[in-house]
This record gives sequence, structure tokens and C-alpha cells, in this order.
Amino acid sequence: MENKSEGCVKLVGFWVSPFVNRVRWALKLKGIEYEYIEEDIFNRTSLLSELNPVYGKVPVLVHNGKPLPESFIILEYIDEIWDHNPLLPFDPYERAQVRFWAKFSEEKLLGSAWLALCSEGEKQERAVKLSIEALEKIEQILKGKIFFGGDKIGYLDLIIGFISYMLPAWEDVASVKILDPLKFPAIAAWTDNFMNHEVIKGEYLPSKAEMIRYFRWRREELIPVFASYQL
Amino acid sequence: MENKSEGCVKLVGFWVSPFVNRVRWALKLKGIEYEYIEEDIFNRTSLLSELNPVYGKVPVLVHNGKPLPESFIILEYIDEIWDHNPLLPFDPYERAQVRFWAKFSEEKLLGSAWLALCSEGEKQERAVKLSIEALEKIEQILKGKIFFGGDKIGYLDLIIGFISYMLPAWEDVASVKILDPLKFPAIAAWTDNFMNHEVIKGEYLPSKAEMIRYFRWRREELIPVFASYQL
Repeated sequence: MENKSEGCVKLVGFWVSPFVNRVRWALKLKGIEYEYIEEDIFNRTSLLSELNPVYGKVPVLVHNGKPLPESFIILEYIDEIWDHNPLLPFDPYERAQVRFWAKFSEEKLLGSAWLALCSEGEKQERAVKLSIEALEKIEQILKGKIFFGGDKIGYLDLIIGFISYMLPAWEDVASVKILDPLKFPAIAAWTDNFMNHEVIKGEYLPSKAEMIRYFRWRREELIPVFASYQL
Repeated sequence: MENKSEGCVKLVGFWVSPFVNRVRWALKLKGIEYEYIEEDIFNRTSLLSELNPVYGKVPVLVHNGKPLPESFIILEYIDEIWDHNPLLPFDPYERAQVRFWAKFSEEKLLGSAWLALCSEGEKQERAVKLSIEALEKIEQILKGKIFFGGDKIGYLDLIIGFISYMLPAWEDVASVKILDPLKFPAIAAWTDNFMNHEVIKGEYLPSKAEMIRYFRWRREELIPVFASYQL
């Protein structure tokens, strides 16, 4: 799809990447038409090493031939290029707060929950504990709100969105409980709001069965890799 | 200092933090008057837990009573509030590139060089190798330029600035060589340009002797902590 305002937009992704979904959602929220290119990251072509030579990872947004990796950075770029339906708030202090919590959730929640998926025993217990501590802080900032920024979905919702559909699969695969809805009522209500938002509802998501099959395999592969990693 | 345009600006820092220096430099580049508050992070008051309850770390910028932690986020905030002498380029794709390399250098260069300082033996060798690989990429993007953005000092210069004055102290303390000027002529020229910039030259920096004394102590303290950390 090419037109004057949008230019040529492509997204290189992988079906089960939570980082890719953030970009899909952002493009959909902005109403941007794009070509989606699925790249099998375990059997890759040369595409990713050409478009993202530093990391070789998805997602990569390609806008008018110029490649851009890293979901956080892509979302800021999308918001700067297409400024309707803003993802970040207008006020600089609020923007800074959103960036702060995005970084926090990436490091403390996604990082710990991923380790809980890919570990066993005491290490897993510690990773679950750290994930829950991160959720406690997120519960506080979400209390009384429909979305993180208020009434409208935005940047932080997209960054944290993975907990609404992917975290339950991780919990099942790893036989742990991280997001207890009784303990985190604001987050539980938000996951409903998020999943029922028309843009999120209308976008591709892998089924829970597909995710469970995939992450069961990843867990087995990564347990020995993470075994030497100290929390 | 209070006036209508600046409001009340305070910076909570620690004398040898490379993260704090980025903010000092940014405020100086913008010509913003501020009150500097030194916090002894090893014998701390309640100030940091009040201003940065999530991480308890420096730097914290306090603007009109509102606290903001994290140097990357503070620099973006400063650039949005005071838009003269811009730190980030105007073009969204160039901005995204700057953010990409800032994140890269934080994770791959600062992270690896810090580990090289705080480790021994094979682990240290590996950390040195990773630091050098990061510098190789940075050398490529710097070639033929005075500063990262061209003629004017900007965001990426401030983020990577620590290698011009602090990395040599780390190398001395750890008895390693990371930044070989013969191997990295563009970076070597840039460190001169950076250190001779009137704003950087005019700002407080700890002496090499002070840094060596401090980082020698940190190295001894942290070697056992990082011993279990796998690269």
C-alpha cells in the first residue's frame, strides 16, 4: 500500500513475538496500511541481517525503504510521523512518566516473567516473586483507570499488553501463578478493557493452544541456557 | 534559582555517576540554572526513596516539585521543556536512530565495560571483547564527524560521553585496554572534541586520581557479586 501521507510501510515480524504485536497494534490504532512480512526467526533468510544488522531481531519497521528496529523506538517513531490518535500524552512530564513505566515493565515485569517461564526450582520461585512485585507497582498506577493514560488506549497499554493474552500461556506452561485477579483487581479489569478494545480485538493474536505449544518448546530449550544466570 | 521560564530546577546526584553527568551537561547546554544536591548513595538520607521510590537511584531531576528519574528519560524531558539548543535531531527517523544507538551503547558498551571493571580472568576477557565489539560499531557511525549528530554536540554525545573521561580510569583500575586510539581513530578524535567542548570543559568532572581510588574500591566490592553472573 502506498499513498502520499503514509508512504510505503512494511513490518517484519514473527507470529508469536510480543514485541511485534506492539507495532501491529500501534499501526492499527493510527489506521496505517502496511505489508506484514513473516520471518521465521529459527530458520531465517538474510532479510533480518540486512534490515537489523546490529541485533538481527524482529520487529523491524521499514518506512519508505528505511529500516527501524526496537519496539519502543518504533512506537515513538510512529507517534511522531503520524500524530493523530496520539500514543504518548502531550504533556512532557506525563510523557516522561509513561516512558519510565514502560522501561520499568520491560525490565522488571517482562524480564522476570520470561525468566519464570524458562527456569525451575528456587530460581523460578524468585522470578515469580519479582514478577509479582512488579505487578504490585503497576496495580497502583492503574487503579481507578480504564487504560493507563485514562479513557484512551496508549503507549503504555501497548507495551504492557502482553500480560493480557500471553502471560496466561506462560503461567500454564511453567505451572506458576503470577497475575492473580483477586490480588490485582485493577490489572484484571484492564486486561478485559484491553482485550475488548476494538483495535486489539480486531488484530491477529495467536491462540492459547498455539502459544502453549510454542512456549513449552522454548522453555525446554532455554532452561539449560538460563540455568547459569543469577538473579 | 526561580524564574518564569525555568521554574525551580534541582538535580539530585552523586559525584562520580556517569548517569548524573549526562543531566548536568544537558542542563548546562540549555543554559538552565539549577540547584545541585549531592546524595551519598552509600550513606543515604530518605531523599532518594522519596523522590525515586521505585529504584532509589540518582539522577533525579526535580522540576517545580515534580521528580523524574532515569538519565535517558530526563534528557528527553529537558529537550521537550526547553527546546532551544536541541539535543535530539528534528527529523523523526534521525531521532529514532539516535535513540537506537543510545540504547545500544548503554547495553553493549557501558554494560560490558562495567563488567570488565568488576570481573577477572576469562569473564573479564569476554567482557573486554564485547566492549571492543561495541566500540567497532560506534566507530563506524562516528567516522568523518565532529560529534555524533554532525557539527553540534547532542543527545548521543552526552550518553556516550563517559568513555572520554571515565573509561580510561576503568581501564587503569582493571588493567585492561578497551579504547585503543589506533584502532578507533574516529572515537579518539571525538573524545578530544567532546572534552574540549566549552560546555563539557566548564562542567565539574572528578579527577582521574579520585576516580581510580573510587573504582578500585567498587571493583573489589563487586567482583564477588558479579562472579556468579554469566555473560
